[in-house]
Amino acid sequence: MKNLFNFELLSRDKNARLGQLSTAHGIINTPIFMPVGTAATVKAMHLKDVEAAGAEIILANTYHLMLRPGQENIREMGGVRKFMGWNKPLLTDSGGFQIMSLGNLRQVQNDGVTFKSHLDGTKYFLSPKISTDIQNALDATITMQLDECISFPATYEESKRAMKLSLEWAAMSREAFEHRIGYGQFGIVQGSIFSDLREESAKGLIEIDFDGYAIGGLAVGEGQDLMFKTLDNTTKYMVQNKPRYLMGVGKPDDLIGAVKRGVDMFDCVLPTRSGRTGQAFTSKGQVNIKNSKHILDKMPLDLECNCYTCQNFSRAYLHHLFRGKEILGLMLLSWHNIHFYLNIMKNIRNAIKIKEFEKFEKTFLNKYYSGDD
Amino acid sequence: MKNLFNFELLSRDKNARLGQLSTAHGIINTPIFMPVGTAATVKAMHLKDVEAAGAEIILANTYHLMLRPGQENIREMGGVRKFMGWNKPLLTDSGGFQIMSLGNLRQVQNDGVTFKSHLDGTKYFLSPKISTDIQNALDATITMQLDECISFPATYEESKRAMKLSLEWAAMSREAFEHRIGYGQFGIVQGSIFSDLREESAKGLIEIDFDGYAIGGLAVGEGQDLMFKTLDNTTKYMVQNKPRYLMGVGKPDDLIGAVKRGVDMFDCVLPTRSGRTGQAFTSKGQVNIKNSKHILDKMPLDLECNCYTCQNFSRAYLHHLFRGKEILGLMLLSWHNIHFYLNIMKNIRNAIKIKEFEKFEKTFLNKYYSGDD
Repeated sequence: MKNLFNFELLSRDKNARLGQLSTAHGIINTPIFMPVGTAATVKAMHLKDVEAAGAEIILANTYHLMLRPGQENIREMGGVRKFMGWNKPLLTDSGGFQIMSLGNLRQVQNDGVTFKSHLDGTKYFLSPKISTDIQNALDATITMQLDECISFPATYEESKRAMKLSLEWAAMSREAFEHRIGYGQFGIVQGSIFSDLREESAKGLIEIDFDGYAIGGLAVGEGQDLMFKTLDNTTKYMVQNKPRYLMGVGKPDDLIGAVKRGVDMFDCVLPTRSGRTGQAFTSKGQVNIKNSKHILDKMPLDLECNCYTCQNFSRAYLHHLFRGKEILGLMLLSWHNIHFYLNIMKNIRNAIKIKEFEKFEKTFLNKYYSGDD
Repeated sequence: MKNLFNFELLSRDKNARLGQLSTAHGIINTPIFMPVGTAATVKAMHLKDVEAAGAEIILANTYHLMLRPGQENIREMGGVRKFMGWNKPLLTDSGGFQIMSLGNLRQVQNDGVTFKSHLDGTKYFLSPKISTDIQNALDATITMQLDECISFPATYEESKRAMKLSLEWAAMSREAFEHRIGYGQFGIVQGSIFSDLREESAKGLIEIDFDGYAIGGLAVGEGQDLMFKTLDNTTKYMVQNKPRYLMGVGKPDDLIGAVKRGVDMFDCVLPTRSGRTGQAFTSKGQVNIKNSKHILDKMPLDLECNCYTCQNFSRAYLHHLFRGKEILGLMLLSWHNIHFYLNIMKNIRNAIKIKEFEKFEKTFLNKYYSGDD
């Protein structure tokens, strides 16, 4: 018998939530971080190592996959999960965010968005229904509505227009969603930094009735303070019995601050992208492994970390790999960062469970901000 | 108690040899293939996966490591093996081969070779003693003598001169070698394709008395027939009770033909380098995964292979990764190729053990040359 798509709120510690999301493809313990597998690969990592690091769900990008290899090819291969060898849940975005960042290559109309591929200039049209159908072809466990993501800062009027359009697209996306046991679809709250717009958006989406709700349009340049303030003014309008997903966030301290404000799910390219540029996240903050001070450093990246990289390799070796532009350097730092992120989420869940989230937050941030030297 | 450096010839099937080489860092079952870890990394692979694929010894390049990070830094880090996290035996070349391929950047004198770094033009001098000392600093389980590698074709006179110089350098290298329990040093037979030069070289080296003997100066453009003929005219002058190592070879059928002629050890960049360019070695020959015919190919690279790549991923997925220039593509093909090579060696050892090497050779080559279509 297949699992229903169901979110259970297990306990709360003030606004921080401990939950469990059941899906057709397995259970997700929240709060959770979702490693990003843009083009059906979590860059520079073996998927078995992503799983061993504690990943219970990963994300793939509809925009990249519709361009290459194309949703029909992926459908033919049995969906993204089967294509890439991932047996657990997978979430696809709607394609909207990537398309919005194409700038002049795209044009938004009321019925959808026309854009040109960054690969070869081919013209595409994406509507709420088309985005939903593509995600269906990709066989995503969690489908996202198509929304319009605007840049920051934006005027109140522009933010209102885009939020209203996103609400319309939410209804059209929901209409197009093919209900399957254990699969779900999330709506996306928009409204920039404006509290009343966020409220209107959240309430409008709840009326449509999604299986979960995301918060979009944040971490786009507004800064952490304004992001946290907007979160405060958004989560309070969201229902308790559905998962909440903050899209594209963030650094470790962003995650902790957002969990504190009631968020359950996150995704971000930072751990893998930073890993590929020599930036490691550690319990004492960020470490730039390319810095020449590491040339004879026998310490691991993070003494407290039990990932494969930290258990086996010195900073000196990692520094050597980056100096020589060796692929293994990207592999080892990406692995460490993914492990580090997933380990934070595990610690967060444990802290909420014993109602010591604030103590965890304080201890983590004190050390994290103390620096590596 | 530490192991002595000792080679035991366990059995023979005609000229093919089954052996066991004991070293300070573990036992090597021969015939064996040594994955190449040029700059202290087997490119695009986690070392634990190289080991799981069956590697019992790997190779590192003195030339690359003396330039970056430098032998003194590696000595400070406890040697290459500790630096890169490899607990098993490791062989270092002398630096000679890479330096010879620098062309105008190097100059050979009787006492050694002067060369400029390809990285920054810094001038270096390498003598038999310096090369041996560097390999000592690197803590190589097996040290190679410095030799002069000439290009192909070469005249008899030029081949003779270089062979004689290499013999002199062999004596000087042996003199400089620091004897440590379980560590060994190999001499290198030179002489291009000339039988009498190969004989003179082999006999001269045996007189010096090394712990093993390599065959250099092959697979440099002479073609497989001439390489095999030269091997026939070389191994017959080599002693039975020491390991024989054919340097820089080769393709799967090269390995099999060389084992047939009495060779025990091999190294080659082909499995990893080819893996990074989308070329896979399979039981049915080479497969170019970038070929568009694989776009919807649900088959693994090799139906008979039990490596991680073949057990988990389709050709269509690998094709997708290479089309998108995803690092995971390089990782998965390198892994498959290394596994494939090490698996051939395992099958070779089993075949010699039951005295069915020729049957194995025939079966393997028939299938290998049959092609993938």
